[in-house]
Amino acid sequence: MKEFDTIAAISTSIGEGGISIIRISGDKAINIVDSIFVGNNNRKLNDFKSYTMRYGHIIDKDGVRLDEVIISYMKGPKSFTAEDTIEINCHGGVVGTNRILQEVIRSGARIAEPGEFTKRAFLNGRIDLSQAEAVMDIIRAKTELSMKSALMQSEGSISREIKNVRNKLLSVIAHIEVTVDYPEEDIEDVTANEVREEVTLIISEIDMLLSTADEGKILREGLSTVIVGKPNVGKSSLLNALVKEKRAIVTEVPGTTRDAIEEYISIEGIPVKIVDTAGIRETDDIVEKIGVETSKQKIDEADLVILMLDSSMDISREDIEIIDYIKEKKYIVLLNKSDLGGKIDISELRNLKSKYITEISIKTGFGLDDLKNNIKDLFFNGEIKTEGVFVTNNRHKQALIRAKENLESSLNALEYTSAIDLASIDIRNAWMNLGEITGEALDEDIIHKIFSEFCLGK
Amino acid sequence: MKEFDTIAAISTSIGEGGISIIRISGDKAINIVDSIFVGNNNRKLNDFKSYTMRYGHIIDKDGVRLDEVIISYMKGPKSFTAEDTIEINCHGGVVGTNRILQEVIRSGARIAEPGEFTKRAFLNGRIDLSQAEAVMDIIRAKTELSMKSALMQSEGSISREIKNVRNKLLSVIAHIEVTVDYPEEDIEDVTANEVREEVTLIISEIDMLLSTADEGKILREGLSTVIVGKPNVGKSSLLNALVKEKRAIVTEVPGTTRDAIEEYISIEGIPVKIVDTAGIRETDDIVEKIGVETSKQKIDEADLVILMLDSSMDISREDIEIIDYIKEKKYIVLLNKSDLGGKIDISELRNLKSKYITEISIKTGFGLDDLKNNIKDLFFNGEIKTEGVFVTNNRHKQALIRAKENLESSLNALEYTSAIDLASIDIRNAWMNLGEITGEALDEDIIHKIFSEFCLGK
Repeated sequence: MKEFDTIAAISTSIGEGGISIIRISGDKAINIVDSIFVGNNNRKLNDFKSYTMRYGHIIDKDGVRLDEVIISYMKGPKSFTAEDTIEINCHGGVVGTNRILQEVIRSGARIAEPGEFTKRAFLNGRIDLSQAEAVMDIIRAKTELSMKSALMQSEGSISREIKNVRNKLLSVIAHIEVTVDYPEEDIEDVTANEVREEVTLIISEIDMLLSTADEGKILREGLSTVIVGKPNVGKSSLLNALVKEKRAIVTEVPGTTRDAIEEYISIEGIPVKIVDTAGIRETDDIVEKIGVETSKQKIDEADLVILMLDSSMDISREDIEIIDYIKEKKYIVLLNKSDLGGKIDISELRNLKSKYITEISIKTGFGLDDLKNNIKDLFFNGEIKTEGVFVTNNRHKQALIRAKENLESSLNALEYTSAIDLASIDIRNAWMNLGEITGEALDEDIIHKIFSEFCLGK
Repeated sequence: MKEFDTIAAISTSIGEGGISIIRISGDKAINIVDSIFVGNNNRKLNDFKSYTMRYGHIIDKDGVRLDEVIISYMKGPKSFTAEDTIEINCHGGVVGTNRILQEVIRSGARIAEPGEFTKRAFLNGRIDLSQAEAVMDIIRAKTELSMKSALMQSEGSISREIKNVRNKLLSVIAHIEVTVDYPEEDIEDVTANEVREEVTLIISEIDMLLSTADEGKILREGLSTVIVGKPNVGKSSLLNALVKEKRAIVTEVPGTTRDAIEEYISIEGIPVKIVDTAGIRETDDIVEKIGVETSKQKIDEADLVILMLDSSMDISREDIEIIDYIKEKKYIVLLNKSDLGGKIDISELRNLKSKYITEISIKTGFGLDDLKNNIKDLFFNGEIKTEGVFVTNNRHKQALIRAKENLESSLNALEYTSAIDLASIDIRNAWMNLGEITGEALDEDIIHKIFSEFCLGK
């Protein structure tokens, strides 16, 4: 294990809560806490056993009690960071928690940077980079399904797939090297054929992984959706109807819904982000308030457009302009108020492929299931996979794409020149590309950048 | 110990953080967690030792892993609630934490009401009511000094004083009863005199406690302050200068300042609440934007008015109106820009007692210490006590006042009738009044109301 200084941070969300935790990680964790902690009978921490806790008080340098605490000790490597770690479990609240952190810093720890605890776990070899990234995805997960996917990744699901492919590439490279070392014309030809077969198989494995990337991205980041339509067409009611499912998850627990997830709703576990950070209400008035031009901008940025039309009214000029605009996007048209009879002229929708035009009555609930099925159709090939590995992270997707390109280039080399030593360079590059996912081949700046996007205290 | 059902709640502040804690308290805590926790080698929790931790996963009823956790166990009565308590230390984040709580509830716990863990600690006799109230004060403390005061109260500082006085009252009551049981005329007279002396002494002890109540209230709730003055007189600059002290405390730790304390500043440990929840900026324009009438309303509600005048300009009609209005309030007048020379006509300030008119130059820092001293003068008899017991809670103050009234009434009874048995009733009432502070004499509805003002998870 490498040697690092000892770091500390508040690891719980800051605010008025029952409990806060200050985490201290590094060689000096025990000594630092020992100098500011008074336990029962003034018992010191030199015999503090791993995975046990002690009750006592944090004191300042004059011996004045700052708070009543319980401290817990996880001796490295069996800790989150793989280093000696102490967690001070104190009363929640901003002032008291900060005061204790100050005392920890005064006693020799350094304030941890965002993500630095997880970075330590990575640098100390306890987890790889894709697992580290998943830690943040767990914290930011917007639905249970995205939580589950992130948890699997944190436990190495992607890493295993990547390591498997990398091992196969290593075998191919070894195979080539043996041939190059003992050059005989016909053996080279045989080997070139074999390598071509092997590489083609590996490309298909990478394609399998890449095929999960669109769904994976949505699981991780949410399906960016804009709902457009005339005032009073029923956008708010649609949102309320969709939100219900989320509420059922979150608000069984009173007082736990906060702004952080307010703009996300869940459709069968798919996190759906309603675009417009000013809030859902703002979105309602999108056409009315800011006109078609702004709608177009929102539409450009969205993964999905839901256009609501009032089937009891004529289609307006703005509607037509938007209908024309969305025809290349993934879209769903909802004809609301279908219970009031169809005054709408469906032929106006001729510019749209008809597949995702659905009659709906939010009042009666008619058509809502069709909407969900349309979303599943558009983004999940008809069914939301709840098992198996997803490539959720764009960084991983890009690395896979580069690996595939290098492998395809190696096939070209083999096709036209039979120069398997040139192909070997491409294959090595592909091997390196995949190593970026698990962090085995990645320079420090990029690693630094990845962890700097974490939250404080993790 | 009484028997209660098992309760659970998220005890950390909700939001994106590194760690969340779900606390479970009650007889079934171990069984409930055992049914949803899988540890190393599937080890069950029947031999889970108090003050130890275990690593593992929380699973749902189908065995699907929900999160990687560390659980810790505090066997009653050595726990916060004095009941068997398990804390599940899981990844932060809203969805994952709620999901685990849901599973805990499904397995037989009930969602804890706000303050219910602390209420359990009270009902189980681990702490008294004034200590329980202090727990919330610790969490909400706005400065280190208020934190310290709340911590002392949580450790029983007020309780000891109150119990001391109550014991003395019990002695007096016993003294009277002995006399009443063996009635002899002259003994009654002697006793009446002795009781009068004792009660007078006890009243003076209550007065001592009451004398700390004004300072105590400010320590707990903050000094409600409104700064009024013409636009550009320097109100923002004053605020910035005052805020500096707070920033020095809080922002040594990056990223830890949040809205929760934004409207509080610290003047030598006194939490000063700048009135106007819309924010400090809003207050700047108070005269300009909403006129004198609104200023008057703010002034009525404030503990302290700081009127800033520009000593390089004439006093306006609005200034005079406000000067007249604040003369009965606690106020400080600051003559800013004293470095620009005094064009102001001080005689316009004749309506004000001259004591707290201070020349100041925020630009040079001149006079800022005077301002602080004025505040100490006005609210803390010249010096901020940092040691000793404070009555911080208005509920306690009211109980002390009622006890004092009853004791004075007993003195009257003794004075005019020598009927010490009548006096005895008053003294018993005083004894009951004081019991309300520690919760020994208080009905359930009031106790319920007190705890309902707590935050969730504490």
